[in-house]
Amino acid sequence: MLKAAVLGATGMVGQIFIRLLNGHPWFEVTAVAASERSSGLKYSEAANWKLSTPIPENVADLEVLDVTPKAVKNVDLVFSALPADVAGKVEEDFAKAGYVVLSNASAHRMEPDVPLLNPEVNGDHISLIEEQRRKRKWDGAIVTNPNCSTAILTLALKPLYDGFGINRVIVSTMQALSGAGYPGVASLDIVDNVIPFIRNEEEKMQSESLKILGTPSKPADFKVSASCHRVATLDGHIEAVFTELKHEADPESVAKAMSSFVGEPQKLKLPTAPAKPIVVKKEEDRPQVRLDRMEGNGMSAVVGRIRKDPALGGVKFIVLGHNTIRGAAGCSILNAEYLKAKKYL
Amino acid sequence: MLKAAVLGATGMVGQIFIRLLNGHPWFEVTAVAASERSSGLKYSEAANWKLSTPIPENVADLEVLDVTPKAVKNVDLVFSALPADVAGKVEEDFAKAGYVVLSNASAHRMEPDVPLLNPEVNGDHISLIEEQRRKRKWDGAIVTNPNCSTAILTLALKPLYDGFGINRVIVSTMQALSGAGYPGVASLDIVDNVIPFIRNEEEKMQSESLKILGTPSKPADFKVSASCHRVATLDGHIEAVFTELKHEADPESVAKAMSSFVGEPQKLKLPTAPAKPIVVKKEEDRPQVRLDRMEGNGMSAVVGRIRKDPALGGVKFIVLGHNTIRGAAGCSILNAEYLKAKKYL
Amino acid sequence: MLKAAVLGATGMVGQIFIRLLNGHPWFEVTAVAASERSSGLKYSEAANWKLSTPIPENVADLEVLDVTPKAVKNVDLVFSALPADVAGKVEEDFAKAGYVVLSNASAHRMEPDVPLLNPEVNGDHISLIEEQRRKRKWDGAIVTNPNCSTAILTLALKPLYDGFGINRVIVSTMQALSGAGYPGVASLDIVDNVIPFIRNEEEKMQSESLKILGTPSKPADFKVSASCHRVATLDGHIEAVFTELKHEADPESVAKAMSSFVGEPQKLKLPTAPAKPIVVKKEEDRPQVRLDRMEGNGMSAVVGRIRKDPALGGVKFIVLGHNTIRGAAGCSILNAEYLKAKKYL
Amino acid sequence: MLKAAVLGATGMVGQIFIRLLNGHPWFEVTAVAASERSSGLKYSEAANWKLSTPIPENVADLEVLDVTPKAVKNVDLVFSALPADVAGKVEEDFAKAGYVVLSNASAHRMEPDVPLLNPEVNGDHISLIEEQRRKRKWDGAIVTNPNCSTAILTLALKPLYDGFGINRVIVSTMQALSGAGYPGVASLDIVDNVIPFIRNEEEKMQSESLKILGTPSKPADFKVSASCHRVATLDGHIEAVFTELKHEADPESVAKAMSSFVGEPQKLKLPTAPAKPIVVKKEEDRPQVRLDRMEGNGMSAVVGRIRKDPALGGVKFIVLGHNTIRGAAGCSILNAEYLKAKKYL
Repeated sequence: MLKAAVLGATGMVGQIFIRLLNGHPWFEVTAVAASERSSGLKYSEAANWKLSTPIPENVADLEVLDVTPKAVKNVDLVFSALPADVAGKVEEDFAKAGYVVLSNASAHRMEPDVPLLNPEVNGDHISLIEEQRRKRKWDGAIVTNPNCSTAILTLALKPLYDGFGINRVIVSTMQALSGAGYPGVASLDIVDNVIPFIRNEEEKMQSESLKILGTPSKPADFKVSASCHRVATLDGHIEAVFTELKHEADPESVAKAMSSFVGEPQKLKLPTAPAKPIVVKKEEDRPQVRLDRMEGNGMSAVVGRIRKDPALGGVKFIVLGHNTIRGAAGCSILNAEYLKAKKYL
Repeated sequence: MLKAAVLGATGMVGQIFIRLLNGHPWFEVTAVAASERSSGLKYSEAANWKLSTPIPENVADLEVLDVTPKAVKNVDLVFSALPADVAGKVEEDFAKAGYVVLSNASAHRMEPDVPLLNPEVNGDHISLIEEQRRKRKWDGAIVTNPNCSTAILTLALKPLYDGFGINRVIVSTMQALSGAGYPGVASLDIVDNVIPFIRNEEEKMQSESLKILGTPSKPADFKVSASCHRVATLDGHIEAVFTELKHEADPESVAKAMSSFVGEPQKLKLPTAPAKPIVVKKEEDRPQVRLDRMEGNGMSAVVGRIRKDPALGGVKFIVLGHNTIRGAAGCSILNAEYLKAKKYL
Repeated sequence: MLKAAVLGATGMVGQIFIRLLNGHPWFEVTAVAASERSSGLKYSEAANWKLSTPIPENVADLEVLDVTPKAVKNVDLVFSALPADVAGKVEEDFAKAGYVVLSNASAHRMEPDVPLLNPEVNGDHISLIEEQRRKRKWDGAIVTNPNCSTAILTLALKPLYDGFGINRVIVSTMQALSGAGYPGVASLDIVDNVIPFIRNEEEKMQSESLKILGTPSKPADFKVSASCHRVATLDGHIEAVFTELKHEADPESVAKAMSSFVGEPQKLKLPTAPAKPIVVKKEEDRPQVRLDRMEGNGMSAVVGRIRKDPALGGVKFIVLGHNTIRGAAGCSILNAEYLKAKKYL
Repeated sequence: MLKAAVLGATGMVGQIFIRLLNGHPWFEVTAVAASERSSGLKYSEAANWKLSTPIPENVADLEVLDVTPKAVKNVDLVFSALPADVAGKVEEDFAKAGYVVLSNASAHRMEPDVPLLNPEVNGDHISLIEEQRRKRKWDGAIVTNPNCSTAILTLALKPLYDGFGINRVIVSTMQALSGAGYPGVASLDIVDNVIPFIRNEEEKMQSESLKILGTPSKPADFKVSASCHRVATLDGHIEAVFTELKHEADPESVAKAMSSFVGEPQKLKLPTAPAKPIVVKKEEDRPQVRLDRMEGNGMSAVVGRIRKDPALGGVKFIVLGHNTIRGAAGCSILNAEYLKAKKYL
């Protein structure tokens, strides 16, 4: 068993990390760290635990540590659920101290020598770790997972990109409340409402998608436009995607390409890898957020309604994914498993 | 005062007709008609009234009539809130009997000699009435209003179409529950959920938009692709729109073109015409469904977040409109006012 | 393994029966029956499956049978999720044909020779089966489970009744949408709303509570008043309970009595029996519907906020339970397990 | 016109004050004050305006002042929407400076020389102003309105108290989100949930009810027990009330007593007084929060489902009221009108 620390352990994503790592076959949470306000408290006192399953027993009594390599010791890897403004510096400190940091924060995602890893899509980007270590002169590493909406989108786009080529992607999201953390969106702002704005989300989708679908050294060259909206769902981001493809593609071929797609995590049988990275639903009114978000234990992208796009000529479809699992902590854990399988841990 | 009948008066849209016509300066509801189940009852007994304002007194005691020209007599115009499958035949019967029928039903919308009227956008389409009368050999007329989502979309597109030219439009909707009528969507299907499918809605948006923005005799020639989704809001359809334009357009010019746009109903000062058909919001997180759906008494399209579209090259923006007012009964009433001003009533 | 039929298998409660019996150690669903509309179809075609877990494979392909003993053959016990108006006659037919019927319907609940069984509370009521067989001259039996709200309430009241005596109970419920079946409550009726009326629910709570807490031959003699309300939750009925007790009781003693309470199902280690029939939460703002409804796999009553009642002198508290599990199918299955342990199956 | 200041003007209740006073025939908002964070800004910049009607023009440009009598000058009366912890001292300062303060804060409500005024119920309590001035040696006055739930409850109880006598009242509330202010309840805490706890609310209902229904010098002597719960509605508190009465009362007599009830504000025709303080609905499923909360422009208590209480012997019923209007700002404004009619302003 490898010993894992969770930084930013008391927040929403930190809690998901702790729940998903409970009973994990390879990793065990032995250290939790958070901001000064919580530091020194028992985890069960510090965390405003919001999940319907209880705090795992082995974590409940851990003392919350400072988010410094000095305080967090004796661990083999570090998961970071830190807020973006804090993550930048702290994650570097841990990498300098020799730790591999699996980060859900956006701070380092777009840096050229940092893998932005959605492992079924771009597992080969881990080669950037060598470059990162050489350039930054550290023994550790920072490996990031994508923005929640982007993780889901790029998983669905991968077989399109490989099989048909992509010229343009338009995506319109309907995103869940848990994506804004806790307390996040005020109830008075969302009951009987849609908020058609999520700060920085469109920019992230537009830039991260290209990095992920590109090679380690060069972003993909298609065009992406996103419009992002908050709706009153608890978990699960659902996205309407419209594509212009390089090659003619009928909906059946696309469904087949998506449904049969597997990545390296599936071949390596990593513990958190879903059997099918993309589940294609045939019912005319699916995927639905509440019914389908837990497909593949929340690690699958669930696609439906694949049809010809009369404006762009390619296909349009719906994709749903679990934002705090595939879109955050689950993806980070899968990244860690992949690094271990590739001998980086 | 002109005497008006409402067909399909007991349903959701019928109720909105009755509420909006209450106190109308030109039209008075003097007859209500509905299916056999209701016929013969007092309106207040037949309608499962779902609005927070009470049934207008002059309507509450009306006897519900059969939906036939024989039963509905002594009226000057007819509003139809009939379901699509019934509307086809019934509306023709009324037109044959000499009535002008203002219809919210989809049955006749796409017929070449039937005006599909969103009067700020295509008031000149009323010239089709002559053709219709000639071809169908009747003295009445059928004039339809657009599908709810399309009424809102085309209002926002009009200044773009006129000012910059349109090549392609992609639209992704988040539509309110009232759009499905009553009982409509089961609560178990929508709490903590999004349903990414509304039967026939995408097809309607894709075809009706072109008819409305075209000339009376020829549809517009741009391309439209829609993806339609149901969310847990009560009223108000909000749409993410992405455009490719013929001419270069920066967001400021577009905002100006939209904000300054007026149509004939404004020039004619029609009672139901909003002062501004398009209200442009400047806040980064508006329009919001609950806060903005009643702009212009529910008759305005509310636009926000106009920005460059990095995939299509034109602009993308958000548009919100009230689906049962601008998108249904309110548009029909405005159509009637327009016909009266143009001496068709 | 005993072979089980589910009557009314396509409805909401029927679906829950099928999900809960999937993988059950003692019972296997080998027959499903429903109304004529579904009969003859494959279960997967007939049921509008609304759960987030898929239809169990062994059930998906079963042919839906008529709800008659003639059609449903070769089973060892029968679960009934029939609507009340159908259940009366059909369940009698099955009992006459020799089957033990575990019914969730209200039709027979208040008949003096029919056990109304919440097995931790009144397991001894199964002695009524003998009386029922003698009086009705049949070899089968009808055994009912309580109304959803009442099952939850009586579980919480049992230790109070035994330990302190009860004079009066006032209960105000906030009930979930799944309690109304599917399609049930229209979304337009419940978004941003509370409906303070559930037909027959108050009457059921007021009468069933006394039968359950009484002896097999005599209802309990305290007084109950209920007010029942529908709120916009998916699953889980939460109830505010106010009591006047025969003996002085401080909140701590009540908490202890509830928390330590076990019934015969726990002693018999029945598969569906929760370890703790009543879970007492100490946090000031619990139980909460979404966070706590799955306690004991949905079979526990979750109590919190036990405090002195300044008007009635006893205690007041909050109780939450899962309405389709403890309040319906789960209770019926526990009843079947209990009957089997007691050699009635 | 009297000039009015609103203290705590930027918060939720402050915004309601400003909306309700817009166009008021007697009072005009000429000064707004709030905490240091806002002070010095224009109101339209300082307030995170959350209402669907725009900020009244005459208020939008007002400079936000400090909440001190030194900063707030040239006004004739003061409305206070301050948070409880600030209100205590600040309201005293204004009273000392000679102002009549109409306060929605709880700080002074239970002080024996401060009127806790729900004017249809206990208009005579304004006689406490003399006592207050004598004892506190100030020329101004502090007059409070009740806690939101209590304002609604006591209005409904008044005709019962006068006509039948009350021994005990049990009340279980389902309260709207706006009652918690903004941002208030996190959306993640309330979607698909009920929170059965609102800090201090039960204590307030239990003590304030007795003060309001008593004489100026002595609380009423019946017993009250409350259980308070938050549900996912935007506005409108709905309460299930169970009563034990001194005298026999059948539901029809109670309905008649409630429906015919009027108070002094009605006799004085005060601008904000609803024609009927209590509206009794006859439909079996009313009042409903969304449909009925605006009865009497949000100033009426809406009662329904009056029925015999089988446990307490009196009647039980449902009462609904608008929490930020009758339960807060509207009541304060009605109090001001009442004071003016009684020559205290």
